[in-house]
Parts: sequence; structure tokens; C-alpha cells
Amino acid sequence: MPTLPPTLNRCLEWHEFSDAARQAVNNEGLRCIQAAGLTIDLSGQRDSLTLRDTATALLHTRDFPTQRARLFAGEAVNNTEERAAWHSALRAPAPITEVATERSRMNEFIRKADLERRWRNIVHIGIGGSDWGIRLSLSAFGYRQCWRTVRFLANIDGHALESALSGLDPHDTLIVVASKSFTTSETLQNAARACEWLGSAGVPHPKNNVVAITAKPDVAERWGVPRHHIFPFWDWVGGRFSIWSSVSLTTALSVSSDVVAGMQAGAAAMDQHFIEAPIEHNAPIQMALAGIINRSVLGYGSLNISPYDSRLSNLVPYIQQLDMESLGKSVDKYGRPIEVPTGPAVWGMAGTDAQHTFYQWLHQGSDGAPVDFIVCQHADHGWDEHHKLLLANCLAQRQALMQGKSYEQALAGCLAEGRDQDRAHALAHHRVHAGGRPNTLIVLPKLSPFALGALLALYEHKIFTQAIIWGLNPFDQWGVEYGKVLANDITRDLSADHIDCAHYDASTAHWLQSFNQHNKNP
Amino acid sequence: MPTLPPTLNRCLEWHEFSDAARQAVNNEGLRCIQAAGLTIDLSGQRDSLTLRDTATALLHTRDFPTQRARLFAGEAVNNTEERAAWHSALRAPAPITEVATERSRMNEFIRKADLERRWRNIVHIGIGGSDWGIRLSLSAFGYRQCWRTVRFLANIDGHALESALSGLDPHDTLIVVASKSFTTSETLQNAARACEWLGSAGVPHPKNNVVAITAKPDVAERWGVPRHHIFPFWDWVGGRFSIWSSVSLTTALSVSSDVVAGMQAGAAAMDQHFIEAPIEHNAPIQMALAGIINRSVLGYGSLNISPYDSRLSNLVPYIQQLDMESLGKSVDKYGRPIEVPTGPAVWGMAGTDAQHTFYQWLHQGSDGAPVDFIVCQHADHGWDEHHKLLLANCLAQRQALMQGKSYEQALAGCLAEGRDQDRAHALAHHRVHAGGRPNTLIVLPKLSPFALGALLALYEHKIFTQAIIWGLNPFDQWGVEYGKVLANDITRDLSADHIDCAHYDASTAHWLQSFNQHNKNP
Repeated sequence: MPTLPPTLNRCLEWHEFSDAARQAVNNEGLRCIQAAGLTIDLSGQRDSLTLRDTATALLHTRDFPTQRARLFAGEAVNNTEERAAWHSALRAPAPITEVATERSRMNEFIRKADLERRWRNIVHIGIGGSDWGIRLSLSAFGYRQCWRTVRFLANIDGHALESALSGLDPHDTLIVVASKSFTTSETLQNAARACEWLGSAGVPHPKNNVVAITAKPDVAERWGVPRHHIFPFWDWVGGRFSIWSSVSLTTALSVSSDVVAGMQAGAAAMDQHFIEAPIEHNAPIQMALAGIINRSVLGYGSLNISPYDSRLSNLVPYIQQLDMESLGKSVDKYGRPIEVPTGPAVWGMAGTDAQHTFYQWLHQGSDGAPVDFIVCQHADHGWDEHHKLLLANCLAQRQALMQGKSYEQALAGCLAEGRDQDRAHALAHHRVHAGGRPNTLIVLPKLSPFALGALLALYEHKIFTQAIIWGLNPFDQWGVEYGKVLANDITRDLSADHIDCAHYDASTAHWLQSFNQHNKNP
Repeated sequence: MPTLPPTLNRCLEWHEFSDAARQAVNNEGLRCIQAAGLTIDLSGQRDSLTLRDTATALLHTRDFPTQRARLFAGEAVNNTEERAAWHSALRAPAPITEVATERSRMNEFIRKADLERRWRNIVHIGIGGSDWGIRLSLSAFGYRQCWRTVRFLANIDGHALESALSGLDPHDTLIVVASKSFTTSETLQNAARACEWLGSAGVPHPKNNVVAITAKPDVAERWGVPRHHIFPFWDWVGGRFSIWSSVSLTTALSVSSDVVAGMQAGAAAMDQHFIEAPIEHNAPIQMALAGIINRSVLGYGSLNISPYDSRLSNLVPYIQQLDMESLGKSVDKYGRPIEVPTGPAVWGMAGTDAQHTFYQWLHQGSDGAPVDFIVCQHADHGWDEHHKLLLANCLAQRQALMQGKSYEQALAGCLAEGRDQDRAHALAHHRVHAGGRPNTLIVLPKLSPFALGALLALYEHKIFTQAIIWGLNPFDQWGVEYGKVLANDITRDLSADHIDCAHYDASTAHWLQSFNQHNKNP
């Protein structure tokens, strides 16, 4: 058995890095990185010369350059599932033959549908990455509405199904079924119901209205999807990266193939930056280092994403999924416990909505959280005053989180408002902001498909870099499997004549019996 | 100066309570509480006889019964703003005269609008509580679509404005402007743009198409809203409780006044429960104690809300806002530092979507988070199999979080799948679930307005109880004010000829100059 590399906590370089991080300061001056047209401002994260040196040493001892090269070469970096995570190949400027061929097939399908003015309605059925990615691209570029009506159906909940199908003309509805394995329970159940709905409206061959996006074309064909309606992707594309695959068919049909191509070009430009830029000017690497410091050195439990652009509200669940499925692990790729905290909880909301929802907590709560601010320099509308207010709010919240407000400043404010001394002294305590809270500001020139593609790849590579440092496999998701197995037993027992309660804790047994009784006597 | 009560950490009862919590166990047996038609299952939270005794002592030493009585009597429990937080008065079965009078006025407006088939479109403009509450009631009861089209406009972002107005007939559009102070920047700017849009479409008196919901009727009238279109509420209603006020006009116009009345009745029933039920059978109190243990004793940094009902997806931002604005504080009501961690980060998503987004992290991440599962026993659709799968998934995820999966179980699974010994031993490490993670299960008989109202009041009172234990004022939000002040300066400087950079850190100064230049030379 070959000697394994040490866990992170056994690396001298980790301790040197974390010591340097503890001693470094926030916000001493301007620190911006240019990457694929985006500007990433890391002035609000810790920095020092020692920290930079120790970061370089840390990356090398974690074998980062080799691991990155393996990722882009399509090697089996997903060690527990023994396969590649080669999503970068889907957006390569000169893609491999199989990718190019399938892309042409898909574009031909779209061209024909547009020419025939077919499929006025699309019901996109998928869950997780193959749902959030498409929702994101539509809210980003279809916010003014499109001539095709697009509905999303992910949840197994029948109310979601009812809501997705309501009011559509079945005869002009395309059902897009996106499932890598073509066995995802929610997706297949929902697809079956959608076909029943088509059939009961008199659509002669419901499955001719279905398109399948899958890595298992044979399974889709057995399910009844016509071969020419199956757009495959490959085993080496993870579900959370499927936006780069033929799952983007729905994006292309609703907001055009140009959007898909633009996003791919932006992501490819970020790939190039990630491969080539030196460590200190490499945006994904620097964001990764800041994230590792915030999580594993300073102990922040979560990461807030605040896009100051209402079109990017779906970026939050998209990144949540990308980051938390990838980094929500406690063991390293060799199965050993990781002795430092790994991936944070990722949450957020578009600003300025967020300011009226949880910024109170970010400013004055006991923990706070690092914030990623995302903003577009140019708006795509004509209300200059609105865009100015949006930018001002973003900069102001960030400034407040960084510099805080001392008791003396708060007191001066209370007195200036005309309060008497006693009242002002008492109230000032409630108006103190701790400050010193870390943040990153990402500036897009405007919300183009290119910029959004670059932004998504920026986060992908940040997450990959963090995984290499922590030493974990970001491409598996074993934690998702167990609940599925338990759900099968419970589903069976929900209809069973007799439930063997010994398998269950008292509470699960109680609810199983209660729901089971109700099924029999509604 | 009177002697102040001790901070929490100086209370003997706190230390007895937290010691008991550390020694207590999860999930020894079934522990359910009935409250206003809901069942709250706390089996997944810590419990012991000692813990129950110390909890009672803690509540008494924190003067809980008196504080609760003051809340419902409309006394000035919001000490820093010197006013009441009397939202319970808005839903009282026999409301005070001013509430009853305004409710009749509103119902008369709705009756007339329905009779005349007026206002086919509604643009609801508000932000924070007066936005999320209405979105929640519509996604809960309007998911099948309503005859009126309702759009929401909260963000100052002009793209949100464009999207909200797109495709509506201005001549049959009612603009509902909800702002307690009638000075909220986003809301007033957006309302002004909406009126311009009406005017440019030839609506003769745009402000006749506006309704104002506000505690400052005079300000709204000066702004131009006709007096008979102003539905006031009161200084003693916090923005985050405004769903119980005339802000619900939009709910009534879209999904009926019955929904509003039903929600009020459910909330009133929960008020009664909270006032009357003994501590051990008091659902808000028991949820509060569990939350305090998870946060301040066990150190969980966040709380996950997982409604297993797609109609409740907006419950997450609603509770996020309610909880994080209320409990995101670091000083107690007397301005003294609270020496234990207070309110958690609240985040989540409707299940089963959540399972494909972040459940990996909940199961196998290094921290995990307590989860509130919410589920309806009865569905309002006819696909029994879908509802059974939904219930099964909810119970299964909860079971996995509680009981976990040991290495031995994981190994047996890997071997049963036919893997060889070496591979099975290696892989099993990746399939271990820690287990023992706390959760609460809330079961609604079905998603009626009554049940939703009860659910919202349950969370309100949970939050209030936690505030009393931590000793903080849950009704102010000073942390929201500071950013507004800074934003004013930055807005000015975004158009200024000369910027005095000495006021700003290097990064803020850089972006101010960059955005300012761009404004001049786009």
C-alpha cells in the first residue's frame, strides 16, 4: 500500500498558513484581480506578505498544480466513483468530437422548432443542478418574458405538478426530462404524470412530446422517448455541472442558443484564467484561500451570497447546491476524518431585498458571516437613478460590514438626533456595529451570458481548489444516497397492512402508523 | 438607577439548564405537542426530567410570564423604540374598535372591487415583511393561479421593476404601496416609477390607481394617494408582523378575504395556546428552548427550515426575516453584551428540492444544522402516490439525520452491492453518517389558512420566548439603519464632481470613482 499524503492538519504548511492568516489584517488597501472580464475585489479579506508566501507553499504541498492538470485532462479525479469530472470539456472552444456532434444535433433540433414555431410551452423536469442552472439562466436573461412559456417541475409534491401544468395547451407543450441516470425518482414520477396529462388531452403519442437529457440514452429509450429526442451527455459530467451539457436545451429554446454559447465562452475564459494565472493573480485560487481562512481558521460557519441584481436571485440556490454538495464532507478522499471544519452553509438573497430580511443579523448578530457581493457596473434598463441607488446600497452595506461603528460614533449620532444624554448613552449601545467582517466584491461589466458563464466557472474552481486543500473529493455525494434507501422502506410501509416498528425510532414509527391509517381511511 | 436583572450568563438557572441540556439525550421516545390544530414533534430534540425542571426555573428567573403578559396587553415591550408590539391585537377574535373599523373599510373596498370586476392586475410594492408575507400567502393558496394577476416589486433594481410591470394593462392595474413609514427608499422610488408608467399609458390620474398601506396616512396623502385609498395600520405593528395588518389587502384581492380571516383565526388560536398551555405542553416555548440549546449550548450556527410542501417555499425567507431581524442582536435590552451566541442564521428550501441541493451537507458536512421539517398530512391534489413519496422522503431524511449510519452498516452495504473487500472497506468511510442531529417535525392536518396562520404565530412566539431568555429586544432593528445613512453619502458621491476619498476605505473609494466616471461617460 503506498504511503498516503498527510491529512491537512498534519501539514506543517497548513499551520504556517493558518498562523499567518490569524496575524494578517483585513482591508489594508485595494486588492483587485481581473479574470475573464470580471473584477474580483478581495480588499475585504485577510492579506499579508507572509500569508501569500505560506499560501503558495500550502498549495504546493497539497499537490495543487498536478490535481488541477488532472481535472482539465479528464482524468479520474472523482476517486470514489472512479470517473472524471470533465465539465470543462463541454465548454472548450474546440470541443472533442462527441461533444461537438451532440451540440450540433441539439442546435438543429432548436433551429427546426423555431422555424416551425413549435413548442410554445416547455415543462422542464429535473431536480438539483439540472433544475437550478436552467432557472438561473432564465431569470438572468428571460426576465422580460419570452415567447415560449417555461415552467419548472422538480419537487415530487403534487402541488408543484399542478402548478407547473396549469393553463398550458398540452398539444403545444414539450416535456424536457433531465436526469443523468434516468432513474431519479422525482423526475421520472413527474414525467409520467406529465405524459398522462398529455394523453388525457388527446395528444396521440404523448412520448413524442418528450425530450430526454441523460447519460443513459438506452434507459430513456426503453422508457419510451424517441431516439431522435434523446440528447445524451456523459458519465464524466456531474449533475451539478449539467448546465454545460444538453440540459441547456431549455435555455436555448427560451432565451436563445446565443445565450448558451455566450455562457460557455465565458466559462472557457475562466478555465483558461484558472489554468494560467499565477497564484497571486488567480481569482478562483484567491477566493478559495479566503474561504478556507474564513471557515477553518476564523471559524465562520456560513457564507452569504448577496447578488445586487434581482436577475441573479437564482444564483443563490445554484451556488448553494454547487458548494454544499461538493464540500459537505467530513472525510478526505482516502476516507480519513478531516480535522478542520470544511464547507460552510451557503445562503443568501438578492440585495436590496436581503437588507430588509437578514442584514440586521449580518451587522449586529453574534457571529455574522462572510459575504460575497456581486454587482453589475452597467444596467440593462434606462432608470439611472435606480441603478445608482442599487450600487450605493451595495457599497454602503459592504462598508458598514468592514468598518463597523464604534460606541463613540453611535453616541454622537444619538446626540445629534436631539436625544438627552441619558437616553443617548443607553441607546448608543444598540447602535454599535462590530465591523471587521470579511467580504469579497465581484464586479461584472454587465450581465452578459459571457459574464454569467465566467462567474459560474469562478465558483466551480474556487470550490475545486478548496477541495484540494482540504483533501476531499468534491465530485461525489454519498450523503444523498442513504435517504433514498430509507425512503423506499418507508414508502412501502406507508401502504403496508402490517408495519414492523422495530426498524424505526418511536417518532418515525408513530408517523408511519398515523399516515398509513390515514391512507386507508382518508 | 434601579438594579438591572443579571445577564443570562450570570444566572445560576442558565448554568443549571445548560448543564442539563448537555447531559440530556435526543430521541428517547415520542414527544408531541398539540397546538391550535398543529402537532409539533420534538422527539428529535434533547429532553430529560432535569432539563424540564431547569427550563421552568430558567423561564421564571427571566421573568417570562410577566413579559408574555405585557406583550399581549399592548405594553411598550419594544424598549429601545418605546412602543408596543401588539400584532396579536390585529387578529384578536374581538378586535378593538380602531382595528375593527379599518378591517371593515378594507373589506368594503375589496367587495366593491370584486363586484365591479376591477383591478385585473395588482402590483404589490413593499420590501421585507410586507413583501414576503404576501408572497407566502399567495404561493400557499394561489398556486393554481387567480383571476387577478399579482406581481411583486421589492428591490430597487430597475430590472425588478421592468419585470414586474411587463405585459400588464396599466388601465386595470392597482398599485398597492406598503410602507410603515411611507419613506422606505426602495418602495417610494418604485411607486413613483409605477405611477409614471400609468401616466405614460394615458391613465388620467395615476395616483387614483394607488392604494397605500401605512402607519403614516398623512405622509401617504401628501404623496398623492386619495384618502379613501389609504388603509392605515399603527405604530405598534412592526414591519415584520405586517401580514396581520391591512398589508393583507393584496392577499384578499387575489385569494379572497376568507384566506385572510382564516389565517387570523389560526394565529389567534396559537396566541391562546401560547398564553394558556403549561410550559411542558406549550409548543412555542418548547421550540424556543430547543433552539436555545442548539444555538447557545451545542453551538449550532444555523437553523434549517425544510417545508415538505412546494407551496411553502416562501416560508423560508419569511421565517428568515422574522427570526434574523428579531434575534440578530449582540446586546441585551439594557445594552449589555450577551455572553452566549444568540439568533442563528436561518436558511432552507422546500423538500424534496432541498435534498438535491444541500442535504449532502446536512448529513455529512462537518457541522450540520438543526432542521425544522414541516409537512401536511393531507394533500390538496389527487395524486396519492406523489403525496406518499413526499411524506416518505420527509420521514426518511429525518430518520437518517437522527440515527445516522455507522461504519459497520456502511461496510455491509458496500459488500452487499458486490464490491470486493478492499474497495468496500475504503468506500464505507465515505458512506458514514454521523447522526444525532437535532430536528423538529411540524405536522399540519392540511394547508388551510387556519393552519398557516397558526404556524406563523408559532414561530413568532418561539422567537419572542428566545428573546426573553437571551434578554434582548426582538422588536427593534438598529442594524438596518446604519447602511441607509452610508448609502445616502455614497449616492451623493456617485454623481459628485469631486469625491472626498478621505471618508472611505481604499476599496470603496476605488469603486465610487469607477462608478462615478462611468455615470459621466457611459
